[in-house]
Amino acid sequence: MVEKRTPIPVHEAVRKVMNVPIKQHGEDVHLHEVYGRTLAEDLVATHPVPPFDRSPYDGFAIISSDSTEATRDNPITFEVIETIGAGSVCSKKVQSHQAVRIMTGAQMPEECDAIVMLELAQAYTNEKGSFMTIKRSFPSGHNISYKGEDVTERTVLIEKGTRINPGTIALLATFGYERVKVAKRPTVGVFATGSELLELGDSLEPGKIRNSNTHMLLAQIERAGAVPHYFGSLPDEFELCFEQVKRAASQVDMLLTTGGVSVGDFDLLPDVYEKLGASVLFNKIAMRPGSVTTVAVWEDTLLYGLSGNPSACYVGFELFVRPIIRTIMNDPLPHLPKVKATLAEDVPKANPFTRFVRSTIQYQRDQIHVAPIGFNKSSAVSSLAKTDAFMVLPGGTRGFKTGDKVDVLLLETDRGSEWPWA
Amino acid sequence: MVEKRTPIPVHEAVRKVMNVPIKQHGEDVHLHEVYGRTLAEDLVATHPVPPFDRSPYDGFAIISSDSTEATRDNPITFEVIETIGAGSVCSKKVQSHQAVRIMTGAQMPEECDAIVMLELAQAYTNEKGSFMTIKRSFPSGHNISYKGEDVTERTVLIEKGTRINPGTIALLATFGYERVKVAKRPTVGVFATGSELLELGDSLEPGKIRNSNTHMLLAQIERAGAVPHYFGSLPDEFELCFEQVKRAASQVDMLLTTGGVSVGDFDLLPDVYEKLGASVLFNKIAMRPGSVTTVAVWEDTLLYGLSGNPSACYVGFELFVRPIIRTIMNDPLPHLPKVKATLAEDVPKANPFTRFVRSTIQYQRDQIHVAPIGFNKSSAVSSLAKTDAFMVLPGGTRGFKTGDKVDVLLLETDRGSEWPWA
Repeated sequence: MVEKRTPIPVHEAVRKVMNVPIKQHGEDVHLHEVYGRTLAEDLVATHPVPPFDRSPYDGFAIISSDSTEATRDNPITFEVIETIGAGSVCSKKVQSHQAVRIMTGAQMPEECDAIVMLELAQAYTNEKGSFMTIKRSFPSGHNISYKGEDVTERTVLIEKGTRINPGTIALLATFGYERVKVAKRPTVGVFATGSELLELGDSLEPGKIRNSNTHMLLAQIERAGAVPHYFGSLPDEFELCFEQVKRAASQVDMLLTTGGVSVGDFDLLPDVYEKLGASVLFNKIAMRPGSVTTVAVWEDTLLYGLSGNPSACYVGFELFVRPIIRTIMNDPLPHLPKVKATLAEDVPKANPFTRFVRSTIQYQRDQIHVAPIGFNKSSAVSSLAKTDAFMVLPGGTRGFKTGDKVDVLLLETDRGSEWPWA
Repeated sequence: MVEKRTPIPVHEAVRKVMNVPIKQHGEDVHLHEVYGRTLAEDLVATHPVPPFDRSPYDGFAIISSDSTEATRDNPITFEVIETIGAGSVCSKKVQSHQAVRIMTGAQMPEECDAIVMLELAQAYTNEKGSFMTIKRSFPSGHNISYKGEDVTERTVLIEKGTRINPGTIALLATFGYERVKVAKRPTVGVFATGSELLELGDSLEPGKIRNSNTHMLLAQIERAGAVPHYFGSLPDEFELCFEQVKRAASQVDMLLTTGGVSVGDFDLLPDVYEKLGASVLFNKIAMRPGSVTTVAVWEDTLLYGLSGNPSACYVGFELFVRPIIRTIMNDPLPHLPKVKATLAEDVPKANPFTRFVRSTIQYQRDQIHVAPIGFNKSSAVSSLAKTDAFMVLPGGTRGFKTGDKVDVLLLETDRGSEWPWA
């Protein structure tokens, strides 16, 4: 019996998935463990930066009015009364025509209002003490980094949901965030289906192939920022399959299966969803590859029936799983980033469905060029490794020509996008 | 005493670092642990893909010549003699006007040379057995995925040095690479210097600031793919400092310190390098920020004296440390990728030195636009978190205007670049 399925447009499928209520949790993690995680709350400045007026250079702190008359012909000499390094404060009250030798980052002596860079002063010591001479004047405020000029206290520096990069970590450290509230990473389970699948270490057998999708998915889950959990292969026997899916689904936030969602006699997932009482959001999408991608909701868990086809499986993950993972992690830009690119070769064949073509981008001067990769059947596993973008070709009656501007979804970037669909 | 240092151009500094002999090692790692690592040897196809002729669809395998006469008015009926799922092989010899019900991915029966998609056949069962009828002809080879059409055996699929992405993992799994030879990640040690530095949990004190650079560097090291090791803070006392640097340097592949490389009285690193007998490659670069970046070689270890300034430290890492880390990991494109971008706002101030301006890029249609971020003093820690690119502005007497095309180095991407310097 061939079941009739009604395909829905890609953007509608994405919307249905995004409308499923999800739960977000935060957790406290040490600063050294948060690279790549997302902030679960705004990063707020706990004090001004700089926290005090300071010298950005090695040099001498002076009272600027003492320097007004200094010229090449009229050098002015200052007594150097103290030397302060970064981290120290001046212990003396600076008087007129006195200077303080000051290191980069050190706090300005209270009475001083200008810094003379080391190179612009002539320093010397004699029996009377330490001195330095300048041959030009310095205005008030010269070479001072003022308290709060970089950041004022209570400023929201980085919004909740931002992916933490090395610069974010510098900020967190500056404000003393030893532990950081980050979004808890969802756990995503993966099952392979299909008795044609051999495990990694197995030798090839007639008719069989090695399971590659699940391992690929584990890496896609990791790239998206979630925690992958591999449950192994499901048998092609309904009751066993049902029990295993049910048990696994209660342990994870999302459960992915690959294969078993077509209309073939051995495609058990549709029946498993039915017996679970899961609500099927869709089971056919007007796209290539990945048209059989099925998403269902059971209790709090999203069940994804991804295609058994490597490329279809890959696309299904990036379009429908990634944005949920990123949303659970508070990311306001959960989708793949979309850019326009110039097509670098013809894609002559028309297709009635929206196509996601495995592609690679090149930056040529200030433009992005995109070319499909190799052999574009949905089973072509060899091209996935070189794929760093999907070209999105709208369905229609015509092909596409070199030079056409096309939409491209970027894969290997930390960026995201709000809603890339029309 | 102000030491005179001679600045060298950026590209010369990079070249000097890249010319230091480095050691590359491989290690065997389980497939589930290799995401983000780099291949230490070429990935070679251990068998053809597909490994046998197979059906890309659910349907019926037939002998195509049996279908030649089939039309809407002349339907032709086939006896369905067996059903094979993916992973099974046909046990019977297919005769003329016999068909085999075949699932996606299953091996073609030897005698068959075309697949009829399920939707194009009318299947029925009666007391005589199972049958299916077609109303059109199918040419030989129709809907068959041929053995080796995707990949032939012994093909080099991915070159040594490639960063492993989810697609690479699918390939590795397909060919049964349960363990993968990947490049050993170098260990990079980090010291903070400067008694002005408070630790993360400390309250602010007059004149002092919290150590942020080292935590930032640990994340930069992680982003570049290496293993960070934090050694804590160095004291401002020479002998202690020397001993700690010497001990640490012998434990890691690279040792980074931040601060202590200027010409201030408390900048001890130059003397440490001298006492070690390390060979200093350079200690002044014609660039902003980061001009005091110092690199020395001691025995097998690269010693980096990065600026204590957050932005200068950040830039110094990306220009001089990252490419070495990536090279040790066999990456043939170890440098930050360089693209051209359109300047989105004026940068009026001229500067005699090459500047690396903290910036953010935007994709506008198929062009890349770049804008400097906020406040561009080298101490401005708040801008680093929003930085995803450096604008490279050549030194000279003029500023730059909106619309100018400028070079940009991208930070948040897995891509690399061969030699981005003129």
